[in-house]
Amino acid sequence: MAREPKVSLIPLGGLGEVGKNMMVVRYGENILVIDSGLMFPEEELLGIDIVIPDITYLLENKNIVRGIVLTHGHEDHIGALPYVLKQLNVPVYGTRLTLGILGGKLREQHMLDNVKLNCVKPRDIVTIGPFKVEFIRVSHSIPDAVALAIETPVGVIIHTGDFKIDQTPVDGEVTDFYRFAQRGEKGVLALLSDSTNVERSGYTMSERVVGQTFDDTFRESQERIIVATFASNVHRLQQAITTASRYHRKVAVVGRSMVNVVNIACELGYLNVPDGLLVELDEASRLPRNQVVYLTTGSQGEPMSALTRMASRDHRQVEIMTGDTIIISATPIPGNEKLVARVIDQLFKLGANVIYEAVSGIHVSGHPSQEELKLMMNLVKPKFFMPVHGENRMLIKHARLARDLGIPESNIFVGENGQVVELTKRSGRFAGRVTSGRVLVDGLGVGDVGNIVLRDRRQLSQDGILIVVVTISRDSGLIVSGPDIVSRGFVYVRESEQLMEQAKEKVKSALDKCASRKISEWSSIKSQVRDDLSKFLFEKTRRRPMILPIIMEV
Amino acid sequence: MAREPKVSLIPLGGLGEVGKNMMVVRYGENILVIDSGLMFPEEELLGIDIVIPDITYLLENKNIVRGIVLTHGHEDHIGALPYVLKQLNVPVYGTRLTLGILGGKLREQHMLDNVKLNCVKPRDIVTIGPFKVEFIRVSHSIPDAVALAIETPVGVIIHTGDFKIDQTPVDGEVTDFYRFAQRGEKGVLALLSDSTNVERSGYTMSERVVGQTFDDTFRESQERIIVATFASNVHRLQQAITTASRYHRKVAVVGRSMVNVVNIACELGYLNVPDGLLVELDEASRLPRNQVVYLTTGSQGEPMSALTRMASRDHRQVEIMTGDTIIISATPIPGNEKLVARVIDQLFKLGANVIYEAVSGIHVSGHPSQEELKLMMNLVKPKFFMPVHGENRMLIKHARLARDLGIPESNIFVGENGQVVELTKRSGRFAGRVTSGRVLVDGLGVGDVGNIVLRDRRQLSQDGILIVVVTISRDSGLIVSGPDIVSRGFVYVRESEQLMEQAKEKVKSALDKCASRKISEWSSIKSQVRDDLSKFLFEKTRRRPMILPIIMEV
Repeated sequence: MAREPKVSLIPLGGLGEVGKNMMVVRYGENILVIDSGLMFPEEELLGIDIVIPDITYLLENKNIVRGIVLTHGHEDHIGALPYVLKQLNVPVYGTRLTLGILGGKLREQHMLDNVKLNCVKPRDIVTIGPFKVEFIRVSHSIPDAVALAIETPVGVIIHTGDFKIDQTPVDGEVTDFYRFAQRGEKGVLALLSDSTNVERSGYTMSERVVGQTFDDTFRESQERIIVATFASNVHRLQQAITTASRYHRKVAVVGRSMVNVVNIACELGYLNVPDGLLVELDEASRLPRNQVVYLTTGSQGEPMSALTRMASRDHRQVEIMTGDTIIISATPIPGNEKLVARVIDQLFKLGANVIYEAVSGIHVSGHPSQEELKLMMNLVKPKFFMPVHGENRMLIKHARLARDLGIPESNIFVGENGQVVELTKRSGRFAGRVTSGRVLVDGLGVGDVGNIVLRDRRQLSQDGILIVVVTISRDSGLIVSGPDIVSRGFVYVRESEQLMEQAKEKVKSALDKCASRKISEWSSIKSQVRDDLSKFLFEKTRRRPMILPIIMEV
Repeated sequence: MAREPKVSLIPLGGLGEVGKNMMVVRYGENILVIDSGLMFPEEELLGIDIVIPDITYLLENKNIVRGIVLTHGHEDHIGALPYVLKQLNVPVYGTRLTLGILGGKLREQHMLDNVKLNCVKPRDIVTIGPFKVEFIRVSHSIPDAVALAIETPVGVIIHTGDFKIDQTPVDGEVTDFYRFAQRGEKGVLALLSDSTNVERSGYTMSERVVGQTFDDTFRESQERIIVATFASNVHRLQQAITTASRYHRKVAVVGRSMVNVVNIACELGYLNVPDGLLVELDEASRLPRNQVVYLTTGSQGEPMSALTRMASRDHRQVEIMTGDTIIISATPIPGNEKLVARVIDQLFKLGANVIYEAVSGIHVSGHPSQEELKLMMNLVKPKFFMPVHGENRMLIKHARLARDLGIPESNIFVGENGQVVELTKRSGRFAGRVTSGRVLVDGLGVGDVGNIVLRDRRQLSQDGILIVVVTISRDSGLIVSGPDIVSRGFVYVRESEQLMEQAKEKVKSALDKCASRKISEWSSIKSQVRDDLSKFLFEKTRRRPMILPIIMEV
C-alpha cells in the first residue's frame, strides 16, 4: 500500500505571541508561505527596533519555496518582507492595498524593481506550485483583508488571516460568507483561525459604531478637533473625513505614517475625500478653530509621534488650547498603557477635552470575539483545527471553543512556533520540529545583537560602567601611572569624589597584591581588579556597575 | 484690622501622579506632615529602585515640623519614612497595623530605637502643636486605615487618606460615617480626597465579593490552589484562609513579603488563623494535592517573585502541574500589564487553570468610585475642596464632580506638587510655590543619580559603548600603540571583526588629522576621534553607541 499523501503546517511565527505572523504550508517538495510579519520588541530587548521570524527553515529549502501569499497590509503580517525577500526572492501575492503598502516599504529599500508582486482580487484563484489559493474577503481594521482557501492534494486548508465579522462595514464589503460556507459544505481539511480576541465573549462591535461616536463628538465640539488613530485604519480615517465634511470642517493630516497612508489610500481609491477638504497644516492653523479637524498619529503615545509632541507643547504647527477636543480612537497595545496615559494626562492639563478608551464606541477591535469565532468554525466545518495568532492562553482558549463546538480533542492542534503538524486525509499528528525563533533587528544590523550584547545593555542600563585605566611596569608589575577611573551611568563623578578616590585605592591595592604574588597573566590581574572593585562598590552603593579594567604595560 | 489667620496646604507628593503621597499642613510657625510615601520608578528611570518626595521644604523648616501623621501602611504612604526620618526625626502617629509594618522597615534599617512612634486608635484625638488631629476609620485594601480631621485655628481640614466605602467589610469595621457627618454638620473648612478611582462610575464592590469568588473556586478545584495577591491586603488573606479552612485545606505561605505580613498581622491580631492550619512548604508538598492552598506574592508578575518563578518552573519548592488552580487576585498596576500577561501565559502552558482579571469578582479595588466620592463630599460638606492622590486627569475629573455637587469653582483647588494653597475662613488662593520634586534612590544612593547619569544609562541601554584606547607620542602626536577598541552592548565583536578593523582605521585617520594640523589639546583630539567614529558607525549600523576615547601619552 502506498503511503498516504500528507500536508504539513509549520508555524514560523505568531504562535505563543502576538506578532511576526508567518505560517508555512508544505506538500512534498513544495512550500507556500503565508504572511511575513514583524513584532515590536518586548521592553527587555534593549535597543532593538523590531523582531522578525527566523527563516532558516525556508533558506534551507530555498529551491522549493513557490511563493508568499499575504492576508492584509498590517506590519505584523508584511513587516518582515523587506528582510525576507532579500534572502528569498519568490513571487508575492496580495490584494491591491496590501501590495500598495508593501510597495512603499520596498521602494524605501530600493527593492521594488527586483520583487515580483502579483495583485489579486477577492475570489481570485491562483495556482502556486501544487497549491490552488483562493482569496476570500473578510472584514478587518484595514481594507482589502482576505482569508485564504488553499487547495492541496490532501484537502483544503483555510487560514482566516486576521478577521472580524462586521455586518455593516464602512465600505459595504461584507465578509464573503458564501465562499466560506461553500468550502465548508464541500469539505475542509483544516481551519487555522485568528485567536487574538478569544478572551472576549459575544460579538466585536461594527466599525460603524465609531462613526456614530465621531458624529456625536463633532456635533458638540466648539473648538478644534484632533483625531488620533492607527494610520492603517483607512475605514476609521474615512469616517473621520466624512464626519468632518458633514460639520463643515477642513481636514489636515499630521505625522509621517498618516500622510503616507492617506496618500496611498487616496491614490488607490480606498479613501474618498471631497474636493478641497484636505488642507495643509499652515492653512489649517489660519482657519477658525471650529472649522478644522486634524488626523494624527500618536494614538499609542509613541514618544516621537505628533500627538505626543502636541501634548508636551513641542509640536511646531499644532498648539493645543483650552476647549480643544482630542479623540484617541484606539486602545493601548499591551505595553503602551503608561505612555498613552501620560499623553492623556498632559492633554487634560492643557485644558483639552479628551475622549479616550473610557468612552464606549471610540474604538472597536478588528478581531473576532467568541461568537464570531464559532460562526467561522460552523461555516467552515473543518476536520482539523489549529488556533493561530495569539499567546498561549489564547490558543488554549480557542482550542476549548473548538472542542465545545464538537471538534474532537485529537483533531485540535495547539502548536508552537517551529512545531510541525502533519495531516493526512484521515489523521493528524505533531511531527517534530524545524528551526524557528526570533531575529533581532537593531538599526541596519539583522541578527547581530545576541544574548551577550543584550545582557551587557541590561547591566549598563541599570548601573552604568566604570573604566579603570592604569599603566604598569612590564618588569615589576608596579603602577607607572594611574589608576584613572572614568564613569558613565554610575554616579555623577563630581559629586562622588570621595568614592572615586577610595575606588582608586582599591585598584592600587589589587594591583599591589598581584605584583607581590608575581601574578602576571593579564586575565588574572584584570579579574583581581574587577572583583575587588566590584565588591567595594557594592558594599558602598548596593550597585553593580560593569567594570572594565584597561591595563597597559610600559 | 489684624490680618485674618490662614492655613496652608502644601502637597509635596501625590498630585499629578499616583504614589509618593505627602501633604503638608502649615499654620504659622507650625508644620504637620501627612504620610511619606514612595513611588515605583517609571520605566525610563533606568536602574532606579524607588522614588521619594523632595523634602527640601521640610528641612528648611526643620524646627517647626511638629510631627508626621499616617493614614495607613501602604508603601505609597509610608515607604519614604526611613529616608525622611533619617533627616527629620519627629514624632510619628499611626494606627497599630500601620506602625507594625513601619516598625519592620525601621528595624531593618536599625532605626527603630531612635524613632518616636505613637500608636493611635480610630476616634483618638491627638494634639500636635496647634493642631488637634482626629483619626477616623475608613475602609481600604489594608486594615486599620484612617482619614484625618485636623482642627486648626482657621477651621477643620479633612484628609481622607486612601479609602473606599465598603458596607460589608470583612472585619465588620465600617467607615465611621457618624464622625464624618458630625464634622460636616459642625462645619469643615476643606476636604482633601482620594482621586485614584474617579474615572469609575457607581460604587466599588465590597471586599466580601472576592470571598464569594474564592468559595466558588475552592469548591470546584480538585488539585492544588495557589492564591497570589498583594501581601498587605490582609482582608484578602483572611478570606483565602477562611475559605481554605472551610474546604479542609492547609495553607502554606510563599514569598518574603507575604511571610512578613502574615507574621505581623497574626501577631497583632489582624489575621485570624485556626490552629494547625498554617504549614511549612515542605509539609505542604507532601500533602495530597486537594488538601493545600498556597498564598503567594507575584500578583504583579514581578520577575523575582514566587509566582513568576513557579510559572517559569524555577521555584524549588512549588511545581505547577496540570489541573492546579491559580488565582491571581489583583489587577495589574499600570506598567505591569505585560509582565502579568506573561506569567498567566506560562501558567496556561503548564496546564494550570488560571483565574485572573477577566473573571469578575476575583479582585476589587480599595479606592472609591464616583458615588462614594460624592457621598464623602455630602457627608463632610466642605467649604473648600482639593482633590489629591491622582494624575492630572483624575484631579480634574474629581474637581468636576465637586462642582456638580455645588461647590463653587473658585473654592476648588486642582494643584500641583509644591504649589501652596492658602485658606482663610472666608477665602482661598494659590499662594506661590515651595521646592518639591522627586528624589531617586538607587541602591544606597539617595539623590546621587541625576539627569546626566540617566541620560548615559539610556544611551548605554540602547546602543552600548565603545572604548577606544590609544597611546600617542607626546612630541609628534603620532600613534605609538593601538588603537584598541573594546565594545560592550554594541555588537558582538567576534562576529563583527571587519567593522572593528574599519573602525580602527577611522580612529587612526582622525589622529593623523590632528597630528598634521598640530592639534594638541586633549579635548579637541578626543572630539575628533569621537565625531569621526560616531559618524562612521552610524552610517554602517544606524546605531549611536557611546564612544569613549582614552588617549595616553608617552
